[in-house]
Amino acid sequence: MEKQWRIVDVLRHSRHDWLNKIQLIKGNLALNKIERVYEIIDEIIRDMQQETKLTNLKAVQFAEWMMTYNWKTRLISLEYEVLGDECDLSSYDADLTAWSSKFLTLMENQADAHDENHMSISIEVLKEEVKLFFDYSGTIKDKNNIVQWLREHQQQAAIHLESFHIHNHELTVLIKILF
Amino acid sequence: MEKQWRIVDVLRHSRHDWLNKIQLIKGNLALNKIERVYEIIDEIIRDMQQETKLTNLKAVQFAEWMMTYNWKTRLISLEYEVLGDECDLSSYDADLTAWSSKFLTLMENQADAHDENHMSISIEVLKEEVKLFFDYSGTIKDKNNIVQWLREHQQQAAIHLESFHIHNHELTVLIKILF
Repeated sequence: MEKQWRIVDVLRHSRHDWLNKIQLIKGNLALNKIERVYEIIDEIIRDMQQETKLTNLKAVQFAEWMMTYNWKTRLISLEYEVLGDECDLSSYDADLTAWSSKFLTLMENQADAHDENHMSISIEVLKEEVKLFFDYSGTIKDKNNIVQWLREHQQQAAIHLESFHIHNHELTVLIKILF
Repeated sequence: MEKQWRIVDVLRHSRHDWLNKIQLIKGNLALNKIERVYEIIDEIIRDMQQETKLTNLKAVQFAEWMMTYNWKTRLISLEYEVLGDECDLSSYDADLTAWSSKFLTLMENQADAHDENHMSISIEVLKEEVKLFFDYSGTIKDKNNIVQWLREHQQQAAIHLESFHIHNHELTVLIKILF
């Protein structure tokens, strides 16, 4: 695992993110763009609800990894959404974190600093399984390397690789956790 | 020391505080109280600057203790301000945290749940010393107990008790760190 965050650093990063949001509200207010201010506020509330949904999945390591991902120097910007009901993923936490962080490390090595690289993770909680859909757009330096890695990591403890599609500048990967 | 916070819990508490602020902005916006929105935003920015100044003192434990104080179930609400220039208090961190957290534990035992109890800590950085001014208002169940504790903790490593004043519902304590 990566180094543990200190509380003061977590609060510093969080403060920095919030300062940007508050400045955005203040700026639009000064321009009398009230509708835009409402939009920004609604986006903020939606993001917070996503964080709450993520935290409620009780995969503590995985949630921490995602919520702090963009605070380190990265080539890929990560965002996520949580769809469906609540469920307790605590017993899959370690496997999920290991698979996802290794996969993102692989993709960071694929990404180019001169490009905009983006990863979106959709977590969908269904009755008898959880689907994780990774949607990457950005540089792909070596397709074969990715294909090889995915084949080697088709089945890792609770994680099952369902499918993947790879293009020049885009990669989608679907994994599942079966209860 | 008290139990270590998990990152997800820090983010949950922080998110909760922020949700309140955002709702306050949204509410005043809906009432078209634009001036009030500006005031709230300015207060938020001022609080953030205080957090930054506190963090910059490099007393990591002490900063963490203060910034997370109100997230636990407490009888006293704590606020702080940092005055003066920056300085490196890292070598006084442990002493400062020990003295202050013991003092606040003492005062939590003095406070009454039916009362509003408040502690304001002003940290003033001067050239050759740092002053910490604790200003408490709230229940004081047993003055003698406080006086005795303060006399026993007049000098603890780098911490020097300068003066204190105790009244029925108010207590002020000035401590210093001499470089």
